Amino acid sequence: MNEIVYLNGEYLPREKARISPDDRGFIFADGVYEVVKYYNGKPFRFDDHIFRLNNSLSAVGLKFDTSWLAFAFDILLRKNNLQNKQAGVYWQITRGAGKRVHHFPENIKPTIYAFTFELPSMFEKLEKGIKVITHEDIRWLRCDIKSVSLLPNTMLYNKAVENGAGECILIRGGMVTEATHSSVLAVKNGKVYTHPLNNLVLPGITRKVVKEICLSNNIDFIENTFGEQELYEMDELMLAGTGSEIMPVIQVGEKITGLGTPGPVTMFLQDKFYKLV
Amino acid sequence: MNEIVYLNGEYLPREKARISPDDRGFIFADGVYEVVKYYNGKPFRFDDHIFRLNNSLSAVGLKFDTSWLAFAFDILLRKNNLQNKQAGVYWQITRGAGKRVHHFPENIKPTIYAFTFELPSMFEKLEKGIKVITHEDIRWLRCDIKSVSLLPNTMLYNKAVENGAGECILIRGGMVTEATHSSVLAVKNGKVYTHPLNNLVLPGITRKVVKEICLSNNIDFIENTFGEQELYEMDELMLAGTGSEIMPVIQVGEKITGLGTPGPVTMFLQDKFYKLV
Repeated sequence: MNEIVYLNGEYLPREKARISPDDRGFIFADGVYEVVKYYNGKPFRFDDHIFRLNNSLSAVGLKFDTSWLAFAFDILLRKNNLQNKQAGVYWQITRGAGKRVHHFPENIKPTIYAFTFELPSMFEKLEKGIKVITHEDIRWLRCDIKSVSLLPNTMLYNKAVENGAGECILIRGGMVTEATHSSVLAVKNGKVYTHPLNNLVLPGITRKVVKEICLSNNIDFIENTFGEQELYEMDELMLAGTGSEIMPVIQVGEKITGLGTPGPVTMFLQDKFYKLV
Repeated sequence: MNEIVYLNGEYLPREKARISPDDRGFIFADGVYEVVKYYNGKPFRFDDHIFRLNNSLSAVGLKFDTSWLAFAFDILLRKNNLQNKQAGVYWQITRGAGKRVHHFPENIKPTIYAFTFELPSMFEKLEKGIKVITHEDIRWLRCDIKSVSLLPNTMLYNKAVENGAGECILIRGGMVTEATHSSVLAVKNGKVYTHPLNNLVLPGITRKVVKEICLSNNIDFIENTFGEQELYEMDELMLAGTGSEIMPVIQVGEKITGLGTPGPVTMFLQDKFYKLV
């Protein structure tokens, strides 16, 4: 397929997209990104993604006007014939190419790269649930910034794959933070628990949607930390993310979660979520 | 100047060097690097750099034969007429370009990029010393890997520059770890103190050279953590690194270190260091 990507103002075939290896995204991971999901050509919670992107840009001191992005991504989806499909748009903004100096150079032009991808139906996984592993959360202390400084996430997710698991739940100081690219939510006695929003977790947009569904359906949504041991005592576990949507977790390491099938609260949230998208 | 860089087997003008934006170095910071200093065409401690590079590669599960690098860098220096100068070679190896998946794909070809740079004489700074600031060490928990996942380092160093300082000393749990791109060493009552080698600091090669100088000159070299408050009570402070060499620190934030001039132990170590290079 002749895939078209967006790079610095141009729409061009993927194999022709080229950047300088002096780009600070390549040299320093000096950039931020977002992934938006489109359902039948409509972006889901686009404004939330732009809001988070602006926060990430601001946190790393990168000035970039985001107001035109919706328009560009709409064109990109059409160019890839994905406007009527379930698709994702990935986009990344880095500080741009320049001399290798650790501080932020002035008069440097940001690089923007975006591509689309068709999202396979995860119906089977969403219905059956997945296994996860746990690992110490070795990431930095600004996980609220959605940066491309993702080596730890790839290393930890790779461990999950090596162990036949679909995600890796991260533990910092004995407490569950999130997973390598999704939020972690747990259910006990009908109440939903998740890590509070602070510097240790990404403010997940699907997490936010789950919170809204809980609040409008009289389900307690409790933003408190809980320990690794409690993972094994929860009635239900799930992951939430743009890619994962609301993914039941039925096994942590060698231990079965709850009854080993997606629980009633998880299924209720999934159902409400799909009515929104 | 017509600068020549090395990229995936080719020597080519810097402005012609181009990589795919799908390179995992750009998307995930999935790569490692080294910087070697050359004094009159001779690399300083090349084997130590290769040893550390191999450790970094191994830690991130990247298979790459490093045995031919010395030869390639020698050519690169000559092509840039730096063989008789004080110069640096920067090189970076990433997992290569592929579909954006968090885990490590198989059958992907690593990207290698290298460039040289002339190193300006730091004589004045090395003689006078510099000011530093301190900041919480927000980096990840595998700082022993020399990876390109450096966004925190750039953010923290940028804070130093904004405050008219030359480096930022990092504090984790109240203890001094290192600086954004150098090791931190302190002198009290003629003894040299620095953070022990573990996952929180890079095994600095200049740090190792300082240790050797200390041991062969009957100076105690004590690898113990020390607290942020102790920074202000030390007789001398210095930074050590391939770029910084042995750099006296004469001011931390608004407080003067020792007498506000490079101390005798620092100057002794500088002298012995320059006899080695």
